[in-house]
Amino acid sequence: MNLDYIIPNNWSIIEEEFNPDQVKASESLFSIGNGAMGQRANFEERYSGPTFQGSYIAGVYYPDKTRVGWWKNGYPEYFAKVLNAPSWIGIDVFINEEALDLFKCKKVENFKRELNMKEGWLLRSFNATLQNNLEVEVVVKRFLSLDMDELGVISYSVKPLNASANITYQPYIDSGITNEDSNWDDKFWDTLSVSQKDTSAFIQAKTMKTEFYTCTFMESELFYNDKKLNITPDVDKASTHIAFAYSTKVNQGDVLSIHKFGGYTVDRNHDKYELVTAAKAVLDKAKHLGFSALLENQKQAWARIWDMADITIEGDVKAQQGIRFNIFHLNQTYLGTDARLNIGPKGFTGEKYGGSTYWDTEAYCIPFYMATKDQSVARNLLEYRYNHLQKAIENAEKLGFSNGAALYPMVTMNGEECHNEWEITFEEIHRNGAIAFAIYNYHRYTGDYSYIPEKGLEVLIAIARFWHQRATFSTDKNKYVILGVTGPNEYENNVNNNWYTNYIAKWCIKYTVENIERIESEFGIDYTRIMNKAKLSKSEIKDWMEVAEGIYFPYSEKHEVFLQQDGFLDKELITVSELDQSQRPINQKWSWDRILRSPYIKQADTLQGFYFFEDHFSTHELEQHFDFYEPFTVHESSLSPCVHSIQAAKLGRMNQAYTFYLRTSRLDLDDYNHEVHEGLHITSMAGTWMSIVEGFGGMRVKNDKLTFEPKIPEQWDAYSFKVNFRHQIIKVNVCKGHTHFELEGKHDLEIIVNGKTILISPNNLVTV
Amino acid sequence: MNLDYIIPNNWSIIEEEFNPDQVKASESLFSIGNGAMGQRANFEERYSGPTFQGSYIAGVYYPDKTRVGWWKNGYPEYFAKVLNAPSWIGIDVFINEEALDLFKCKKVENFKRELNMKEGWLLRSFNATLQNNLEVEVVVKRFLSLDMDELGVISYSVKPLNASANITYQPYIDSGITNEDSNWDDKFWDTLSVSQKDTSAFIQAKTMKTEFYTCTFMESELFYNDKKLNITPDVDKASTHIAFAYSTKVNQGDVLSIHKFGGYTVDRNHDKYELVTAAKAVLDKAKHLGFSALLENQKQAWARIWDMADITIEGDVKAQQGIRFNIFHLNQTYLGTDARLNIGPKGFTGEKYGGSTYWDTEAYCIPFYMATKDQSVARNLLEYRYNHLQKAIENAEKLGFSNGAALYPMVTMNGEECHNEWEITFEEIHRNGAIAFAIYNYHRYTGDYSYIPEKGLEVLIAIARFWHQRATFSTDKNKYVILGVTGPNEYENNVNNNWYTNYIAKWCIKYTVENIERIESEFGIDYTRIMNKAKLSKSEIKDWMEVAEGIYFPYSEKHEVFLQQDGFLDKELITVSELDQSQRPINQKWSWDRILRSPYIKQADTLQGFYFFEDHFSTHELEQHFDFYEPFTVHESSLSPCVHSIQAAKLGRMNQAYTFYLRTSRLDLDDYNHEVHEGLHITSMAGTWMSIVEGFGGMRVKNDKLTFEPKIPEQWDAYSFKVNFRHQIIKVNVCKGHTHFELEGKHDLEIIVNGKTILISPNNLVTV
Repeated sequence: MNLDYIIPNNWSIIEEEFNPDQVKASESLFSIGNGAMGQRANFEERYSGPTFQGSYIAGVYYPDKTRVGWWKNGYPEYFAKVLNAPSWIGIDVFINEEALDLFKCKKVENFKRELNMKEGWLLRSFNATLQNNLEVEVVVKRFLSLDMDELGVISYSVKPLNASANITYQPYIDSGITNEDSNWDDKFWDTLSVSQKDTSAFIQAKTMKTEFYTCTFMESELFYNDKKLNITPDVDKASTHIAFAYSTKVNQGDVLSIHKFGGYTVDRNHDKYELVTAAKAVLDKAKHLGFSALLENQKQAWARIWDMADITIEGDVKAQQGIRFNIFHLNQTYLGTDARLNIGPKGFTGEKYGGSTYWDTEAYCIPFYMATKDQSVARNLLEYRYNHLQKAIENAEKLGFSNGAALYPMVTMNGEECHNEWEITFEEIHRNGAIAFAIYNYHRYTGDYSYIPEKGLEVLIAIARFWHQRATFSTDKNKYVILGVTGPNEYENNVNNNWYTNYIAKWCIKYTVENIERIESEFGIDYTRIMNKAKLSKSEIKDWMEVAEGIYFPYSEKHEVFLQQDGFLDKELITVSELDQSQRPINQKWSWDRILRSPYIKQADTLQGFYFFEDHFSTHELEQHFDFYEPFTVHESSLSPCVHSIQAAKLGRMNQAYTFYLRTSRLDLDDYNHEVHEGLHITSMAGTWMSIVEGFGGMRVKNDKLTFEPKIPEQWDAYSFKVNFRHQIIKVNVCKGHTHFELEGKHDLEIIVNGKTILISPNNLVTV
Repeated sequence: MNLDYIIPNNWSIIEEEFNPDQVKASESLFSIGNGAMGQRANFEERYSGPTFQGSYIAGVYYPDKTRVGWWKNGYPEYFAKVLNAPSWIGIDVFINEEALDLFKCKKVENFKRELNMKEGWLLRSFNATLQNNLEVEVVVKRFLSLDMDELGVISYSVKPLNASANITYQPYIDSGITNEDSNWDDKFWDTLSVSQKDTSAFIQAKTMKTEFYTCTFMESELFYNDKKLNITPDVDKASTHIAFAYSTKVNQGDVLSIHKFGGYTVDRNHDKYELVTAAKAVLDKAKHLGFSALLENQKQAWARIWDMADITIEGDVKAQQGIRFNIFHLNQTYLGTDARLNIGPKGFTGEKYGGSTYWDTEAYCIPFYMATKDQSVARNLLEYRYNHLQKAIENAEKLGFSNGAALYPMVTMNGEECHNEWEITFEEIHRNGAIAFAIYNYHRYTGDYSYIPEKGLEVLIAIARFWHQRATFSTDKNKYVILGVTGPNEYENNVNNNWYTNYIAKWCIKYTVENIERIESEFGIDYTRIMNKAKLSKSEIKDWMEVAEGIYFPYSEKHEVFLQQDGFLDKELITVSELDQSQRPINQKWSWDRILRSPYIKQADTLQGFYFFEDHFSTHELEQHFDFYEPFTVHESSLSPCVHSIQAAKLGRMNQAYTFYLRTSRLDLDDYNHEVHEGLHITSMAGTWMSIVEGFGGMRVKNDKLTFEPKIPEQWDAYSFKVNFRHQIIKVNVCKGHTHFELEGKHDLEIIVNGKTILISPNNLVTV
């Protein structure tokens, strides 16, 4: 770990010191979101120290013109950027005309931040001594409403401690913002109007190129010792900024508070000409309810989420804090209520990875959402890709494929590819496999086959076509090969016969054909419709199967393992443990060629295949591969430790599983990869959930039944989780020596625990 | 070929039609240069049609900030840009107040351009009918003086044909220029002053960042029917522009001419505060001599170059035109008089390939300059790299190498790497081999061993160290391997055990060790100095040799060829002739992944090794490899056809050799690769020279003797060339059935012709 300042706590993320060097990290860690918008933990008042400002609106992005030295045919014309949105949180605070700025204060004491995950709010408090020697106590609480997802709420109070003072609150909204990652301080927002109505303010702005229309709004109320004040503010209006100044004298020991309501209305939800009207309605409702009622609603909304999604861990507060941090941020990022949205790798906590959707969604996030939400949420995520099928076909055409073959983009906002490194964009094609696997996984878990004849099979056919065309025949090997790919381990580029890619390609074709056959026999009408629409013939299917059956897998007889790719054994096989620690992380220390020719693995690659297709291999085979590859794995991808934790648990290596669990669950809290200041790793947080449920709990679905092989790390006294399985909720509570199962539902359910069938009945505790 | 409008002519490049669609191509083809500056064939007068403006000053570049989506450690911070320099050629022409603009004229007739290569000038003439119905005849001649390499000269005349007219010449200089390849119309020039002295004008400007100081200057003289006019011009001066307007009435049939002198003085040659003074001196001398005398000097200067460098071909005017075009542009680009300069792949004809020095210089250009100039020119080119040794060591350190290992940059202006594609910058490491080979080649040809103990060995040691560290041991193969490289064929990236790279790595080490041993026995003092300076021990040398002796070479028993790289035989081996022509050139039609997994070869790769190390292989082996690889070669690099022409000639396949010869010599004239509008391929022009001298002439140097195996394509009656060999000049004249040798020198010379030793004496024709 690289940071160790977060105070362990079961339900809260807590920081108890003000350290300018860790402000950016904390801005990430204490981020808040509500699925529709997000806000880094930037201070409301001025701050002149190093900071990374970030306000984000779901689905609002910018197609930045890409510029690379040497253009390659087929590159997309833009690289999507997560956009820093107009700021709604700002409140300048002047105390006897000195601006409050923690970077400039003489003294800052009792500084505390708390992100209360149980109730969904962020608190900050401190005592500060200003340059003018006035001492003040400041308390700030804010949250993004789950109930009203266009609304954010702030309560900000100042108490002068050593003298009376004139205090001015100057709440503002501002659209003159830039992205931290912009190359030349480019502006991405075009401000259309700045307007005021009484004590409300509105800035209408649209994004350039994409023309997303937004209205950023605010209104404020002042309180003197909880008594509402009616002060007419001075208004300061500029081309991209509007501020109201409220000034009053505050006696020593009294408290002046401001409640600021703000947020965004966007044209995804309203007519673009009605955004101010919609904003007014939000403000009216917010004022009517008031801060306390809104906060109470927030607590209740989070209580409903936790009731289903919580995982408890007893006896290990850091582990408990870690898993809740993961579950909390996943729910802040994506609630599954809008099928047009998806789960960005950094959620609403940073700009990096400029697109919202990666294969992370299918490979890592879907199991979490299937088990902790209604299954319609997972189906929404599948439909997101179904809706992008035509664009995936066009994407494949740009790369020379034909006949309806689809290559889903590596990174996308709207179905188009928006990333341009040839080794990723063109070659990291295994992503197509994850999209097919998610369809399989959804059906396996939910038992809902209807998605496949209705929509999924069209996606599968297009993917099977891609693999059929992408494989080529090697006369030298007398096998089909897949040349020039990047596997999940992105520390290898343009390799031949990546085992994972070849394996999932074969699986995709075979799974597609199985479904075609099933639909032919069970869903005749759908079958005819789909075959006609796809212009698919039996002879084409036969051609696919020839490739699937004839595909090559590199294998080492000596090591008894499949090789990650052709030539893997030519590397200098020096394990990570033998590597000088000063060289880590290698992605920050080594040039790319050195990384590529090394044996080091960024994240599970061959082992990712063993995770997806566990049933295809024996435990002995898993062990062979784990022991061969894990020692070369640097886990510099956030997606790596969770898969390794699950596999270590399966192999009964509980200490190793526990270490990987801590690494995945506290990846950001402890900043393992030196990058938390850039934002959090949201999608891997779903992997953390899997490492408990699938890893320690050993949960699988086999033949339409939930199965468990519960294990518990020796560091824990007990842990529990709930899963929603086919409209019933199973609560699993694992203690040392026994496991309790409870069913919230209406029908008896057979589950399999350690190989034995157990019947559980509604509201009846079963202990195994 | 893709263009076919250049009129065949032995000594001139001629165009006889005005076609706006080919203006950009002609601007490249008719470029002029004098080693110190260059000028695309842009029109002097206004032109509102598509054009690519380019004026270039040798050694003046800009370090453009590189921006790629995903930065890699070790990337240089800048990408060098060839800079479009302030314009000195402009002359606006107004006829009865209408600006002459060929794109807007009612009619353009008798349009002709001629680039007279024998005498080094560019002529343009046409009759134009303006919108105002005036008909004029225009004749323009210009050249860049070889004698005074800061000076360009233009004679521009207009004759009104159908009425008298008021004619205004408005010569100007202008520093408000941009690069065509700038991403955002960035300005790269900072104008410092615009000044006037009588009828002279000066713009001082410096490049941003690099701070090259330049003065662009001009002065003009007017003539009415050859009689000098004294018109006081109107002056129009702006922040980056100064123009003088000379107006007069011209009677129908009379001629108004302007002689414009212009050019650049630069701080490479003068104190930066003396650039205007230096410019005045150039103008004074130019005016004193006048247009005619300057032109006469130009003819004489070019006559001296041609006397040594010319190749004559009888019976094939297109072939003759092609080779002279190549020799002419090489001499326009680099004359060998300034060791700080080098040979850019596009010379002074375009912006692309933003650096001046590639491995092209060592692999292709040095033989031409060795044979057609004094050998000090080639030695200058070697010293250029010696002077960059420390930067090459730093470059290697950035990539993790140590102990004085050097990696010369792929692209450079000042010794630093200035290109950032990881697959090229970090992996196309074979360039190091060419730099060592040039040292070997220089010694082989000139017999001058002194360079090696004085300077060359230090370079060789640093290169040997690089290869020793770059190779790794494969326990699987029990051999040393070189993983993750890009060979000369850039249509493969990140491959393992590229045969060419492995071969030249081995050769570099062995050649270095041979030289160390020779210097130890023959140059004791140098030996001690070098070994101490390099901190080199015998045991380190032993380690090198272990790698050299143990290096792996991929080989196919079935095909009896070395494989271009590991896994080459896994490709779909469909030959180029079977490829749909609509897919060519593949680099403009296919996405990069498709190119990479194809078998197609951009330029000689394995065959480049067979070219460099011809003596190491039998003719049968060459034939095997040629027959295996050539059918997959698309020759989409300008450096490809020449090597293939030489090898085809060696194999006695004269038709094939001739086809490749035409392709290399007329690559730009006939625009084989659809890109002449971007500029010419200068460095490959030296390959064209080799394809005659080494290919058809069969010239080699073996054991300090020139050897020849003359052949002649059936399309030719005869051809001749001269080479400067160790301070004597040998003229070779090959006819059908016999070859004449003549020696211009003082000492008898033994040469070997078709295996037989022949003695040639000064001024005594020998016929074989």
